[in-house]
Amino acid sequence: MDNVNSKELINWTGFDLLHMHRFLAMFAAHICLNTLFLSIIMSLIILGSVAFDALETPFGKTDKIVGGAASYAALAASYCYDQVKIIGVVGEDFGENNLSKFSKHHIDITGIQIKQGEKSFFWSGKYHNDMNSRDTLITELNVLADFDPIIPPSYQDANYILLGNLSPQVQLKALERLDKRPQLVVLDTMNFWMDIALDDLKNILKQVDVLTINDEEARQLSGQYSLVKAAEVILRLGPSYLIIKKGEHGALLFGENRIFSAPALPLAEVFDPTGAGDTFAGGFIGYLAHVNATDFDSMKAAVIYGSALASFCVEKFGTERLENLTKQEINERIESFSQLTAFTI
Amino acid sequence: MDNVNSKELINWTGFDLLHMHRFLAMFAAHICLNTLFLSIIMSLIILGSVAFDALETPFGKTDKIVGGAASYAALAASYCYDQVKIIGVVGEDFGENNLSKFSKHHIDITGIQIKQGEKSFFWSGKYHNDMNSRDTLITELNVLADFDPIIPPSYQDANYILLGNLSPQVQLKALERLDKRPQLVVLDTMNFWMDIALDDLKNILKQVDVLTINDEEARQLSGQYSLVKAAEVILRLGPSYLIIKKGEHGALLFGENRIFSAPALPLAEVFDPTGAGDTFAGGFIGYLAHVNATDFDSMKAAVIYGSALASFCVEKFGTERLENLTKQEINERIESFSQLTAFTI
Repeated sequence: MDNVNSKELINWTGFDLLHMHRFLAMFAAHICLNTLFLSIIMSLIILGSVAFDALETPFGKTDKIVGGAASYAALAASYCYDQVKIIGVVGEDFGENNLSKFSKHHIDITGIQIKQGEKSFFWSGKYHNDMNSRDTLITELNVLADFDPIIPPSYQDANYILLGNLSPQVQLKALERLDKRPQLVVLDTMNFWMDIALDDLKNILKQVDVLTINDEEARQLSGQYSLVKAAEVILRLGPSYLIIKKGEHGALLFGENRIFSAPALPLAEVFDPTGAGDTFAGGFIGYLAHVNATDFDSMKAAVIYGSALASFCVEKFGTERLENLTKQEINERIESFSQLTAFTI
Repeated sequence: MDNVNSKELINWTGFDLLHMHRFLAMFAAHICLNTLFLSIIMSLIILGSVAFDALETPFGKTDKIVGGAASYAALAASYCYDQVKIIGVVGEDFGENNLSKFSKHHIDITGIQIKQGEKSFFWSGKYHNDMNSRDTLITELNVLADFDPIIPPSYQDANYILLGNLSPQVQLKALERLDKRPQLVVLDTMNFWMDIALDDLKNILKQVDVLTINDEEARQLSGQYSLVKAAEVILRLGPSYLIIKKGEHGALLFGENRIFSAPALPLAEVFDPTGAGDTFAGGFIGYLAHVNATDFDSMKAAVIYGSALASFCVEKFGTERLENLTKQEINERIESFSQLTAFTI
């Protein structure tokens, strides 16, 4: 009776014992391959400028050093996640030496186009004494003027993408050229694009999960002074989440009818604020890619991670501080954020 | 042998059994009286203006309504602590009806001098659309012009005092007229006194435990732009703790080589910001008096308590919202602050 039942079961499943062993072996192999495959295709794309900056702050000035939104964001993300891939463009002048800054952090630069005979985007600025305002001295678009983002085949199927600060047209082009929409699309932009390309910006916002802008930009985009009201307006434009960066006052995360307020670490000295917003965005999405989660609570932690990395960024000129962080330094900084905000009533 | 030893012991202590009983009874009575005595003398003094305001905001305007630093602070403190005593001065025009607003909250108004034939301090202001700046339309000092703070005997031995925003000379006079220095002296001031009475302000700062000012005032007082550096300078002037109020950006608490950052509750609408800083200070010291503690961790909680009460204050004109809060509303607001800042990494 037992044997009959076993036979019936085997017949029902369409396997005899030999086939069952084969099936189990195939199933195990399938799981292994699938895991391997997933670990290959899980990745984070960072689109943005890779450029030269020349900076002047009350603390000193630099010659041309590595700058650009993607540079800061990718370096920041690389501390959280090991599959970071840049899409950008540089000129012949950028040089292997500067590209190696990314390779050292295991950042994939297949997607950085190198335009022979052309020059990299160059920006020069001077910060005022309060470090909250700056004058642009030079902007040379160079290779960025007609940047056409090309997605290498190895970048397809990325599940996280940061569309760093660039023209909304270029951001949209990059997104549309992906075979499948990533699980999370984060877009960073600035008032400049609201001034000259608002329709294009509103167009891509419909396809974005998270928008990161600063408080003045949130007010400009929404026409509302209250940031709570501004968030309500902006979340109706498309994004499910909005992060309002407030510089020395921290950041606010809106979404799922909740609000999270993250402080900025109070710093005795801001040496050079360039790239802090990009670093924040890179740390934010890098953390989410690392935990592979996109819920509000994970985003709260990601905001703290981004804030912590941004607090390092401003300690030295350009990307210098971001190039040589240790895990311990980052963990201690995260702990400082906990200390800074925890209270018991 | 045992008896001998007992006798020896009794002799040694100088008591026989009868005396021992008497001693114990006296000791118990002493404890009871002392507890009773302590519960009488434990109190919180709030010094400041009790006045009329006429306000105009983008949401409307008021006739003369109750205002003044001590009014806001005392109402706020009364939600935390039941022994709140005001020192102030009003004119004959203030009226029983307005004074009863304090009595309803069991606030002691013995220390409010009523000047017959004179008028109360009156301030009128109009807020701009952003609610962050305002124009003063009218300032009539009236009874405040020669305010001489008198401490009623029943106020002596208070262990907490808030020296609300008034001239540093008046603040010092009030402090000096106390028989004993309270356990905690909190001082609130503003840029106006830094402009016209800096020496007097620096003089009283030497006797203060906690100073509360806003970010611009911290920069003015210290000559430092960075708030961390500003705090270092200001803490060398006397106070052991410094609270920098940043309006919609929350508050920073400095002291014991630690920093605490409290957010402001993001509000869709700020109806009338008048008195928010005074409310914060009142809630802050009221909470500390309630828990009878002055350590950094208690101050962190006190900052949240003050922030929560300030977030109510701005919801309606003047003191209106502060007059009718429930414990449940306050607890829910405190919970909102926890929700707003809690994160796990």
